[in-house]
Amino acid sequence: MTPESVTADPLANLFNRALNGDRRAIARLFTRIENDGDALRDVMRLAHPHAGNAEIVGITGPPGAGKSTIADRLVHAAREDDRTIGVLAVDPTSPFSGGSVLGDRIRMRDHYLDPDVFIRSIATKGAHGGLAAVCRAGVNLLDALGKDLILVETVGVGQTELDIMGVADIVAVVLVPEAGDTVQAMKAGLLEIADIFVVNKADRDGAGQMASAIRAMLSLDPMPDEWKPRLLMTQAHLGEGIPELYEETRLRLRDMKDAGRLTERRKRQATDELTRLVTSSLTAEVLRAMSEDQALLKIVAGVKSGDLDPYSAAERIADSLWRHST
Amino acid sequence: MTPESVTADPLANLFNRALNGDRRAIARLFTRIENDGDALRDVMRLAHPHAGNAEIVGITGPPGAGKSTIADRLVHAAREDDRTIGVLAVDPTSPFSGGSVLGDRIRMRDHYLDPDVFIRSIATKGAHGGLAAVCRAGVNLLDALGKDLILVETVGVGQTELDIMGVADIVAVVLVPEAGDTVQAMKAGLLEIADIFVVNKADRDGAGQMASAIRAMLSLDPMPDEWKPRLLMTQAHLGEGIPELYEETRLRLRDMKDAGRLTERRKRQATDELTRLVTSSLTAEVLRAMSEDQALLKIVAGVKSGDLDPYSAAERIADSLWRHST
Repeated sequence: MTPESVTADPLANLFNRALNGDRRAIARLFTRIENDGDALRDVMRLAHPHAGNAEIVGITGPPGAGKSTIADRLVHAAREDDRTIGVLAVDPTSPFSGGSVLGDRIRMRDHYLDPDVFIRSIATKGAHGGLAAVCRAGVNLLDALGKDLILVETVGVGQTELDIMGVADIVAVVLVPEAGDTVQAMKAGLLEIADIFVVNKADRDGAGQMASAIRAMLSLDPMPDEWKPRLLMTQAHLGEGIPELYEETRLRLRDMKDAGRLTERRKRQATDELTRLVTSSLTAEVLRAMSEDQALLKIVAGVKSGDLDPYSAAERIADSLWRHST
Repeated sequence: MTPESVTADPLANLFNRALNGDRRAIARLFTRIENDGDALRDVMRLAHPHAGNAEIVGITGPPGAGKSTIADRLVHAAREDDRTIGVLAVDPTSPFSGGSVLGDRIRMRDHYLDPDVFIRSIATKGAHGGLAAVCRAGVNLLDALGKDLILVETVGVGQTELDIMGVADIVAVVLVPEAGDTVQAMKAGLLEIADIFVVNKADRDGAGQMASAIRAMLSLDPMPDEWKPRLLMTQAHLGEGIPELYEETRLRLRDMKDAGRLTERRKRQATDELTRLVTSSLTAEVLRAMSEDQALLKIVAGVKSGDLDPYSAAERIADSLWRHST
């Protein structure tokens, strides 16, 4: 693709300009992805043939753990390594996120003149198809645009931390030594998704204790030692521990590639996404049919009036909608 | 139905025995509902013609708020009122729940010899079709068996508190005066689902402050005053405030009936359940087809190998599965 390959499709034009490094075009593509489900789908189609080369590192953990600072420091480390970088912030509790243009500008300040760093906060509101879909699409886009490394920052609370599994090659879980934090994080399923544990603000009281607790938990895990999460201590605001963290992500990814586990993981992610897309499109169709189709409306009315129990009604509706059930 | 209407269907027999007040049969029906999706569906079909007369009161709130104590006290109040009662505990954090037979027995002790009170904890593990489906089925069953009042106790954390909306006629949200509780509860969406706010352990420091905070929030809500949640103070372990709470639930339900809002709410609940059942059965079919159908397996393989983007693949699969899209 060259800047000359101008087509009649405005989105394809925008994508071609983005491929050639036009930052405004990239930003506009993100806005389209966030606001318009059709555009999201089209951008994913355009991006797909170009994607698959980036390394994708997830950074998650509770609010206030220092995820943004760590992401920022990792950008510096990767730039020294001469790699191009994309950062996606999907932390709804972060002052940088919530579609905050101001936040983006603040974060960008250091990297504003660097054409090889692109930072974007994903707006949590109005994200068509959900935040997770936009996040996956954003990663694919940056991947297609040739970024070597993509950092995805998400807050590890509720369901969000599980989404990072669907998009990242490896996940760093950032914790700070505070009462209850470890327990809460583990309850939220962070132990299962972590490839690297980072105890940030390691100068604080309780950091050593927290590290011991994590090590103790890891020792109970029956998985092979070489797959077990590593534990690193950082003081991100001073840059301490960051070179080690950066190095660990590289080593970890190389091991995964060598063992064929990265390919496996990406296949699983792609299949999971496919399943999600199929079921959500079918669900949308079901809801539409139930509000439009005369025969189905009659069944719904039967349930409303109490003449029909929901289970029998559901069976009838599924039968009439589903090809394979006949 | 009489005890004589014995059929060849063991589940129908069990149901008939339950209709005639056989407590062991009721308990066995619950076990079947919890462990077997087909049995759940069949019991719902049997129950449907008999259900619709009970008043269903949800009791939710954070762990430790005293929900079980309040439920227990409300049982006493309703028994003095000569009503028959069912209690369902779906609080995974409650010592009474988790399918704990011991817990049930402890709770039952007061009511063990009373044939008009049936108390059941719903097991959180192995609940086929999910805890929410089992909860709705359990309520329907107790309704069909002629209970006048059904209390459903759920813990208000994460998604669970929203499920109570799908099953209860009115919802009491129980809070205790503790730092951060109000804010947390509101974040969890409890303000939207409460018909009655109960500040329990009202003798504790901060109870008045909490009540003021709730009142302040309610005053900001633009809904008509007569629909707004009421606020009550209780000390459930002493029984204080319980007669008022019991009276309030009765008044509230009468108002809803008179205004036609109860019928509306139940219609909406039935339609929501129908939608949920249809989409979940279609989702199961999609997953099955994607793992069995040769044409679909080829598309899935294309996504795994990277030849096909998930969005195009999802469209093809949906097209081939969906009748209305042709």
